[in-house]
Formats: sequence, structure tokens, C-alpha cells
Amino acid sequence: MINFQTSPERYRHWKLDINGAMATLSMDVSEDDTLNEGYKLKLNSYDLGVDIELADAIQRIRFEHPEVSVVVITSLKPRIFCAGANIYMLGSSSHTFKVNFCKFTNETRCAIEDDSRNSGRRYLAALNGTASGGGYELAIACDEIYLVDDGNSAISLPEVPLLGVLPGTGGLTRLVDKRKVRRDRADVFSTLAEGLKGKRAKEWGLIDDTFPTSKFQESVSERVRQLATSDDKKDDITGIKLNPLEIEISADALEYKFVTVSLHRDRRYADLTIRGPERRPQMSVEEIELAGDSFWPLQAYRELDNALLHLRVNEPEIGLVCLRTEGEVSNVIALDENLTTHRDHWLVREIILHMARVLRRLDVTAKSFFSIIEPGSCFAGNLFELVLASDRSYMLNDPDQEVEVMPGEINAGALPMSNGLTRLQSRFLAEPERVGAVLGQTEPYDTEKAEAAGLVTFAPDDLDWEDEIRMAIEERTSLSPDALSGMEASLRFAGPETIDTKIYGRLTAWQNWIFQRPNAVGEHGALTNYGKPTKAVFDYKRT
Amino acid sequence: MINFQTSPERYRHWKLDINGAMATLSMDVSEDDTLNEGYKLKLNSYDLGVDIELADAIQRIRFEHPEVSVVVITSLKPRIFCAGANIYMLGSSSHTFKVNFCKFTNETRCAIEDDSRNSGRRYLAALNGTASGGGYELAIACDEIYLVDDGNSAISLPEVPLLGVLPGTGGLTRLVDKRKVRRDRADVFSTLAEGLKGKRAKEWGLIDDTFPTSKFQESVSERVRQLATSDDKKDDITGIKLNPLEIEISADALEYKFVTVSLHRDRRYADLTIRGPERRPQMSVEEIELAGDSFWPLQAYRELDNALLHLRVNEPEIGLVCLRTEGEVSNVIALDENLTTHRDHWLVREIILHMARVLRRLDVTAKSFFSIIEPGSCFAGNLFELVLASDRSYMLNDPDQEVEVMPGEINAGALPMSNGLTRLQSRFLAEPERVGAVLGQTEPYDTEKAEAAGLVTFAPDDLDWEDEIRMAIEERTSLSPDALSGMEASLRFAGPETIDTKIYGRLTAWQNWIFQRPNAVGEHGALTNYGKPTKAVFDYKRT
Repeated sequence: MINFQTSPERYRHWKLDINGAMATLSMDVSEDDTLNEGYKLKLNSYDLGVDIELADAIQRIRFEHPEVSVVVITSLKPRIFCAGANIYMLGSSSHTFKVNFCKFTNETRCAIEDDSRNSGRRYLAALNGTASGGGYELAIACDEIYLVDDGNSAISLPEVPLLGVLPGTGGLTRLVDKRKVRRDRADVFSTLAEGLKGKRAKEWGLIDDTFPTSKFQESVSERVRQLATSDDKKDDITGIKLNPLEIEISADALEYKFVTVSLHRDRRYADLTIRGPERRPQMSVEEIELAGDSFWPLQAYRELDNALLHLRVNEPEIGLVCLRTEGEVSNVIALDENLTTHRDHWLVREIILHMARVLRRLDVTAKSFFSIIEPGSCFAGNLFELVLASDRSYMLNDPDQEVEVMPGEINAGALPMSNGLTRLQSRFLAEPERVGAVLGQTEPYDTEKAEAAGLVTFAPDDLDWEDEIRMAIEERTSLSPDALSGMEASLRFAGPETIDTKIYGRLTAWQNWIFQRPNAVGEHGALTNYGKPTKAVFDYKRT
Repeated sequence: MINFQTSPERYRHWKLDINGAMATLSMDVSEDDTLNEGYKLKLNSYDLGVDIELADAIQRIRFEHPEVSVVVITSLKPRIFCAGANIYMLGSSSHTFKVNFCKFTNETRCAIEDDSRNSGRRYLAALNGTASGGGYELAIACDEIYLVDDGNSAISLPEVPLLGVLPGTGGLTRLVDKRKVRRDRADVFSTLAEGLKGKRAKEWGLIDDTFPTSKFQESVSERVRQLATSDDKKDDITGIKLNPLEIEISADALEYKFVTVSLHRDRRYADLTIRGPERRPQMSVEEIELAGDSFWPLQAYRELDNALLHLRVNEPEIGLVCLRTEGEVSNVIALDENLTTHRDHWLVREIILHMARVLRRLDVTAKSFFSIIEPGSCFAGNLFELVLASDRSYMLNDPDQEVEVMPGEINAGALPMSNGLTRLQSRFLAEPERVGAVLGQTEPYDTEKAEAAGLVTFAPDDLDWEDEIRMAIEERTSLSPDALSGMEASLRFAGPETIDTKIYGRLTAWQNWIFQRPNAVGEHGALTNYGKPTKAVFDYKRT
């Protein structure tokens, strides 16, 4: 079982140093501390274990070190920044694992960009040595890239020429969409195994600058100073501690404080229940800081995040997750109001941004989601996003029982999808006027009103309820898991596209295909033959 | 060898009737007239041969029947409109062929939408019986969909539940992006093998209306009348004839009048040379109508189109196409000026729109393209788009010889990519001011100026030229064909996305993946087992 929790004192591969407004994240991968057998993490290459630490570090900088305004990502190894994902690890992994690995590393890089975009922290990649493949993809997720000019160090995306696969962490998309490199130059760069050194790399826009070895540290530090001094409002803020989540794991369940996952492995589905907040008076920002990571929206969403990752990687055969909630609608709405009131406070902002990231993690999870709305549930405000994020929703229609959903102000823009739309906008692309109508409503929706307003898919009555849900689950879990992944990815993201949706929707799909092809993973495939005396033999038919 | 040329008198599967402003395209697939052995085209199911006729009919309506303002697509078979792509054909085809088949059928449907968007013709799908899979996807490419209410006829996308693959002709994307169907309803519809009948289909926005059998013809005719009478400017225009292209095919070459394809199969590349127009005085619209399909921009681009399709389907191992031109730069510019002057005339408009479609066919062709710019070439105006569409361009730098390229007004917007950008805009995403600078230039660019302006990738001098080109070709054709397809698809389409780019870039990639998976095409896969007494057995791991 892969554990997604870690903390700096347990890092094997990264060092996180905080020095005033600057954080330095240094990669120093420990060759033998691998997640699986059969490969060594040479030259700062990485496996999922290395990236779990990176994701943790980025998260902790945001919550534990809000005073940081510049993050420098660099390497402690001489002459090498990072060699990318470990090829032997990829070569020996199942297709499912490879794809889930890439998805997680993509989410980590998108989290860097989310921090930059929404919290204003600048990320500098200080490439003190060669950055190849995923190494350059990590750099290109940063705001600025500086490469040492030592006559040897280069940046490269050697996946196509060396491995017969694509860069798996958004490299191609960020080349042309983020850095807007000319497409013919991007083509040359992406087919050049040895990559480019400083001068040409700068000329083509692949890096921001290059400095000789003797001036590298000094030049990077100077740039950090420029960026750090431009923002001095953060001096007096102090972070909160992110403590480990307590999880009780049994044979067929995961118990967190606010989240329960019940696994029905024989039927290939899981129930995921989130318990809403207790009623509390509106808290001041001081009280929220004091509550820290036990504050419901932070703890519940950290738990949800962990549960989603667990289901993805450790329970690949679970194809459907039924989302359920327990609690009071009014408590969730009150909690959201509390958040909205203080949305400009750094911690509340980070909490809301974290909720948004977790919901986006759900959007790109390759499992079906059904929301099951019953008496005692609290699909309101932020938890109403679960209904909107689901592939379908079922709401009990029983005049004798109170069943309600309740959108709120937080659904109006604080929790955007990767395509920049709210989930309400996505739902009502054909009738955008419904978005305002729903947001203007100040009372909960009962089942009939919810159905009339277009908020739920089906509203079976109490006589049919159990059969309907059972049959819907049986039917869904009988379908081809591949076809469902492709279908859901296509239907979840109507409307505009962004770099993020291109990476998840387009690049991932291509990579999924190529990762399966004999030209990559067959006996004579390029990935299979990497590092061997034998050479890849291709079927050259173009498709 | 698959022949992409046909004409109405040779159609086996469609009938094209012109009646004033209305064209009726009736599907009546001949079961036994298949392109390959081993399947029968029952229930108006189709193979590539059927779709070649459809594409031809759409093209002919535009050029031969410009007086038509409404096109009704219907079926001559009782109770069935169209059952979609033939499953047994798919099941028995190679992966390469399946993907190329889907690409062509997608281009045909995009051509319908192009006609609607840019030439104002309305397309009505008159579903006089069930439309399933590709049948409904053909309908959803039309502007309006009417379904008979006979108690039995339905629309459906049964690919996911029945075949374990995705609808392959843009169905999912058009559901949520074009018709903006609510995503949970799209989810239900796309997993419901039997589909939906008229009432629910209308309520969910999947069709525009439903009429009982007794009133179906009358209601459709009434709608046609409404649409046809709203535009009476077309009464006095007469089309031109699209004659068959003359092609001389030898063992390793295709000779058209303006296009030559030389195949170097042992080295897996082809040279494709386009000969530019002769110098002629500026023509009047009457003279252009008189020239008809022998007018250079129409004939040359019809030939280019045919050559691209031939290379895709009949030469799958050709991985690289070197684009070359022969002629006078000034002649191409003069020709483009002639087109631009008369751009509002129906025929000139259709010619320009056709050129744009052919260039977009090139953009989504899964082969590498290099432009080779040498003395005697004429990469100017519309042919300069070939340089911009190429993955790379090589321009000889020889002070003793005249080598020139020349952008022109036609590059400013008349030939857009599928994403809505011009190829110049795509090239200069990072420096949009260069677009205006290039378009403002009134003199040809020699090699040094072209390189300085960012118009070409490499400019080797005459000493290196031959070696550079030879090595570039060798290198390119040695790489994994799959990785190149994915890479090129990613790098060619930076910037915004549209329904078309989603279909080609995202849906196709997912489909490519799913088409390869054991869950679809393995011994126990759903596609393999369709129509057999055995049932599909899935590996349920979600990826």
C-alpha cells in the first residue's frame, strides 16, 4: 500500500530550508530509497515516493510558511539537477500505475502553478546541472528558469528520441502554451536527445537566463532578492502546523475523522461519506489560526484528498465511488459564510484554494462518481460541489422525509474547475441564466425543486429508491473501465480549455495510448530496451 | 488501394437529389458493396467507402449546387436512419486503419459544420428511424435534428455500454460542447444502450423536435420551407462541375497536374511537390466560373487533398512528407490577390474555404511535415501556409542563388486552423507583434531575412544543405511513429481550443488508447465479442 502522507523530518529525497522570505527546496534523491524493487534512483531521477515528498513540501510552504514569497528549487547533486522519472521504474510498472504516477506528478506541478497564480509566491528553478525529461518539466512548472553555463549542463526532453513515449508531466503543452516557444523550435527541442545548453536555450525561450558556474549562485540569489523585497507584507504572519492525518485502516474501510471510505470490492464500488461541520459561532481569523489544521474545511478536505489518492493507487479495481454526506445543511452554509467573510486572510485563502485543488483532483480521477442524496445529508455550499462534480446524482423523493440540497455563495467562483469555469457554469452551459437563479436562491431546495432547477439527475421515490441505486451501481461497474475513463474525461470538461485541461485531457490521453503501444512497451519497444545493448525495433505504421 | 474519388452517378450507398433550394441526401447502404471482405453493411451501417461518398456529396453540393440552401439528410430504409460504423468492419480492421477511418469520418462531419458556419447552408437530419452510434453522430453534426415518433425509433450512443469504446466521430464532444447537454444527462445517455426516444430526447436537448409518423415528412418539409425561403439570393447562381482528378499512379509515384508525390518507401518518406500557378491576368468572376475546377487554387488543392488521403491510408509506413514547391513567388501572390478581390463571390469563397479545409487536413495528418525551401520554389501566399503548417522548415542560404518566401494578405485570416487562429498567430504566440510586421512586408524575404523574422526553422548554407536535409530525414524517420504522432498533435495546436480541436486532439487520443486496449480488442474484449454468444470479460483496473 502506498502511503501519501509524509513530513519534512521524514524526507529521504528533498531538503526544505526556510530562510526568511525564501524557501529552498533541494533535490538530493537517495538512490536506494525506492517505492518498489528493481531500480535505483540514480542522477536525481524520481519515483512516486520522491514526488509525494515534493507535493508535501509545496503544501507545507503554503500553510506552514506563509511568510515565504520566493521558492528556489535546486539540486544538491553536482552537475545534475534532475534526470526525470526513473526509466526502469516506468519500464517495470503496470500501465495503470504509470498513468496514475503521471497524474499525481502533474497535479504536483499544477499545484506549484496554482500557488504562483493565486498566492503570488514566485518559483525559481535554479538548474545547477542538467535537467532532462521530468527534470526540465519540473523547471517549466516554475515561474523562472536559470541554467548554469558550465560547458556541459543542458535541458532536454529526450522522451521521444530515447524512449518512444511523450514527456508525461505537461512538458509539451507548457513548451508551446505556457512559454509559447515557437512550434518548430519545440519540435526540434523535443526530438533532440542531448537537449540544448544555455545560450541556445535562452534564445529559444526555454529558460530565462544562463550564468557561468562562478556566478550562478550569486546571480540566482540576486534574483531572489529582487523578487523577495518586492513584497514585505508577509513579515508578521505565522503559519499553522499540518499534523499527520489519523487514519484507521481495516480490511474494507478507511476511517478518518470526517471521512469514511467503505470498500465493496466484490462489487467494485466504494461509499465515501463526508461528515459536515458541527455548528459553531462565526470564528475570527485568530480563532481560525488557532484551530489550524483541525478546522473543518482544512481537515475534511485533507482527508478527502488522501482518500481519493488512496482509491486511485491502492484500489484500482474500484470503478465507482458513491459520494455521501452527513450533517446539517445550515452548518455547511454557516461555515462557508465564515470562510467568505475572511477570504482575504492568508490562511482562509489557502484553505479555500486547497478545497478547490481537492475538488479538481476529484474531477480528474479516473473513477465514476455518483452523489447519493438522502435524508440526513448536507450537500450544501462547498459540499454541493460534490453533486456538481459527480457524473450523476440521485436524490430521494420522499414527501415524508426532509431531503435537501443548498447551493451558496461559495459555488459562485471560489472553487473553479481546471477550465476556469465554476461547476455550476459547466452544468448550465446551455442555460447560463440558471446559474444566477440558483445562486440567488436563499432557501434549501427540496427534491422536487432541485429536480426542476436542474440540480440533480434523478429523483426516484422511496418505493424505487433502493432498487434504483443498486441497479445504477451494478450497471455502472459492469461497463468497460477504459471506455468510462475516456467518456468521463470528455463529458466532464465541456467549454473552454486551459493548460491544465490540455495536460489532463489531451496529453494524458496521448500518453495513455503510447504507453500501451508495442513500440514503447513491447518486447522490442523503446521503453523496454532502454539501457540494454539491444535496440528498439519499431512498427513504423503511422496512426 | 483505397480510392477517395467518386461521383454521384457511381454512388452505391447514397442518393443526392437536388430540388431547387433543397438537397436531399438519402442513405440507402448497399449491404454487399463493402470496401473489404468479411462483413455486410446491414441496417445502414457504414464503412469508409460509404463515408467517401458522403464527403463527396457534401463537396459537390457546395461547388455544383450553390443554389441549395437547405440539405436534408435522411434514410431510404424503413425504421432505420443509420446504425453507425459497422462493428464487424471495425473488429476486423488494424488499429492504424481504424484510427484513419475515424479521422476521415470526423473530417466529413466537420466539413458539414464548416459549410453551415461559413456558407450558411442549413443541414437538417430527418431521422425517419433509429440513429445509433455514428448514426446519431452524423445527425449531431447537422444544425437541426428531427426524430420520428413511431413508438420505436430512438437515438443512441451505445459504444460505451455495448462495445467498450467511445463514439468515434465527435459524439461526446458535440453532446456537451455543441448542443450543451447537461453533463449528467450526457452521461446517462452515453451509457444507455437502447438510447432515448423522441419525448425524452427532446427534453434533454438531444434533438430539436419529434413528430408522429403520419406528420413526419410534412413537418420536416415545412421546416425546410421556412429555412429555404429565408434566403432567396441564390436563385440565379449556377454551380461548376467537379471533374475527376487525373492521377498517374506508378510503383513509387503519384502524378497529378499540379502535384507530384515521390515515395521513398525504403527510407519511409515522401517528397510532395506542388507546382504554383502560371502567370495570368487578373480574372473576372465570370472567367473564374468558366475556368471552374481547372482554376489553379481549386485543382491544386483538390490534388493535394487527394494526395494527403492517399498517403494516410495507402502508405501508412511513410512517416515524413517533405513539402516542396515549384514556380514563381509573384504568380502565387497575384493569384491570391485575384482571390481576395473576389472573396465575396460564392465560388471564390468556396475555393478559399476548400483551401482552408485541405490545410486543416494536413494539420491533423499523423505524419511529420518538413518544408524544403530551395531555389525555384514558390512558398508564397497560400503556399506559404505549408511552411507554417510544417513541423519544421529548412531554407537554403546561398548568396549566389535566389531563395525566397513571401507571406501575403491571404495569410491574415482566410485560411484559419481548427483552433480559430491563423498559422502565423500560432507561430508567434509569444510575440504577436511579429504577425503584423510580417503581414506588413511587401517584398519577398530572402533566407537571412526570413530567418531573422522567425519564418523558418533552419537556414543551412549550400555546403551543408544536402547533408543537413539527408540527416534530418534519416533522424526523423528513425523515431517512434507513435511518439511522433502524439508529440506533433500536442505541438501543432497551442492556444485556444474549439470543438474541432477537442475532437481531433482529445477524443481521438482517448479513442486511440481505448482501441488498443485488451478490454476492447483482446480475445475477451467487447469489440471482439460483439455479436457473439460469448460475453466480454474485462480487466477492471481503472486508469
